[in-house]
Amino acid sequence: MNSVQCLRPVEAALLDISGVLKNGKQAIPGSVEAFRKLRASGMPIKLVTNETQATRGAIASILMSMGFDVQENDIIPPCPAVVRLLKDEGLRPHLLVHPNVLPEFSEVDQHSPNCVVVGDAAENFTYEHLNNAFQVLLAGEKPRLFSLGRGKYYREDNDLVLDVGAFATALEYAADVKAEIIGKPEKEFFATALMELKVNPEDAVMVGDDLLHDVGGAQNSGIQGVLVRTGKFRKTDETSAVVKPDAIVNDLAEAVDLILKSNR
Amino acid sequence: MNSVQCLRPVEAALLDISGVLKNGKQAIPGSVEAFRKLRASGMPIKLVTNETQATRGAIASILMSMGFDVQENDIIPPCPAVVRLLKDEGLRPHLLVHPNVLPEFSEVDQHSPNCVVVGDAAENFTYEHLNNAFQVLLAGEKPRLFSLGRGKYYREDNDLVLDVGAFATALEYAADVKAEIIGKPEKEFFATALMELKVNPEDAVMVGDDLLHDVGGAQNSGIQGVLVRTGKFRKTDETSAVVKPDAIVNDLAEAVDLILKSNR
Repeated sequence: MNSVQCLRPVEAALLDISGVLKNGKQAIPGSVEAFRKLRASGMPIKLVTNETQATRGAIASILMSMGFDVQENDIIPPCPAVVRLLKDEGLRPHLLVHPNVLPEFSEVDQHSPNCVVVGDAAENFTYEHLNNAFQVLLAGEKPRLFSLGRGKYYREDNDLVLDVGAFATALEYAADVKAEIIGKPEKEFFATALMELKVNPEDAVMVGDDLLHDVGGAQNSGIQGVLVRTGKFRKTDETSAVVKPDAIVNDLAEAVDLILKSNR
Repeated sequence: MNSVQCLRPVEAALLDISGVLKNGKQAIPGSVEAFRKLRASGMPIKLVTNETQATRGAIASILMSMGFDVQENDIIPPCPAVVRLLKDEGLRPHLLVHPNVLPEFSEVDQHSPNCVVVGDAAENFTYEHLNNAFQVLLAGEKPRLFSLGRGKYYREDNDLVLDVGAFATALEYAADVKAEIIGKPEKEFFATALMELKVNPEDAVMVGDDLLHDVGGAQNSGIQGVLVRTGKFRKTDETSAVVKPDAIVNDLAEAVDLILKSNR
């Protein structure tokens, strides 16, 4: 299948982090070299991630320690976006997020909360914490719930584990609210990356392991979407009736080769 | 409003337990006397409950200790119903339930699970336990998920807390499955109660504090539905566009008076 795949030439690349560059604490074999090759080609890159278990600075440090040539402002995660939104609208959040990202919210007023922000809290998704968030939603007249991405699951070491989307959906159901998504697959989130890169959607490509949120989200924004067979990829993704990737490749190395080949 | 309310005469009464007879560990004021009055009228009663934090025997004991004149076989909870189904279909469940109800499943083969049963596990809804259930669903070819009721929340002492429906919905979303509900508001569950009482739906009334699952569920089965303003009741329930109760009363005492008055 790979031999006949082709993309439109592009001016910029958007890459997912988890499942594309790394799995948990390990770089995916070949991804450091592939990333270096893409950089060396001169193509502008943004790392468009729904990662909410680490601050932007921490994500950059982790990637650098693995050998990836990245800087903090290459990374576009949901936390800074939701902080801007909360400040713009004068909202005071109750945070159901991973303790690691609390510093991102240090300048946001959190007294008498009038909305809930849910991120990938992982082990912090306890019954008690979920009830606390639920009760804030019930207490409000028109409660707002912001979900940092809407992922179903991701790969953590050898297991697929539940992502924020499952818990946002639980709160939606119980409190009768519709979550507002900050992150992939939302158009606005992809638009931020495109704006920073100063490219049009049709001149960009997104590489990810999440069929719906990376590939489908990109395509909804007019960006080509390439699915990798690493990370959370499952065999059934190849035959989905919902999303047809522009290309399916084994890993980032193949994705980079395809992008560079298509640009010749 | 109450003064003009009227029901069709009925031959049997179905009562919810939590939020109608009791809140958490406390009998609701007046409910013991009201229950006694209904019993004294000679009307057959079944307690149709989605309670899955206690075995049927334990539910009976708790109610008796509060002064309710009930026996174990007055109570119709989801656990015995799901156990029958699992045995009939030769299914081996992974149980995401409250430890208190594990004895109900003692005769069910639980090796190499090929389905998931989720009940109101309360504090046992940890990230780890939810992931374990999720992974069983992912591993199956056509995974089946059974949810013991589909409640959004219930009153526990002074707080409204998340019920099983929120977590079933989370698993549905993440694993792309549709939960099969065992309990209210399913017709089959109401049918079990009617069969044991040997009455037709139009000759029964259901009293509950859950607008959708008690009142709406009963009405969907052709049973009159009375909403009480105790338990999880919220003011907004009175003006719902989704379910219109046949009557709304303050508590079980008023419900019993209304039932007996309508039967004269």
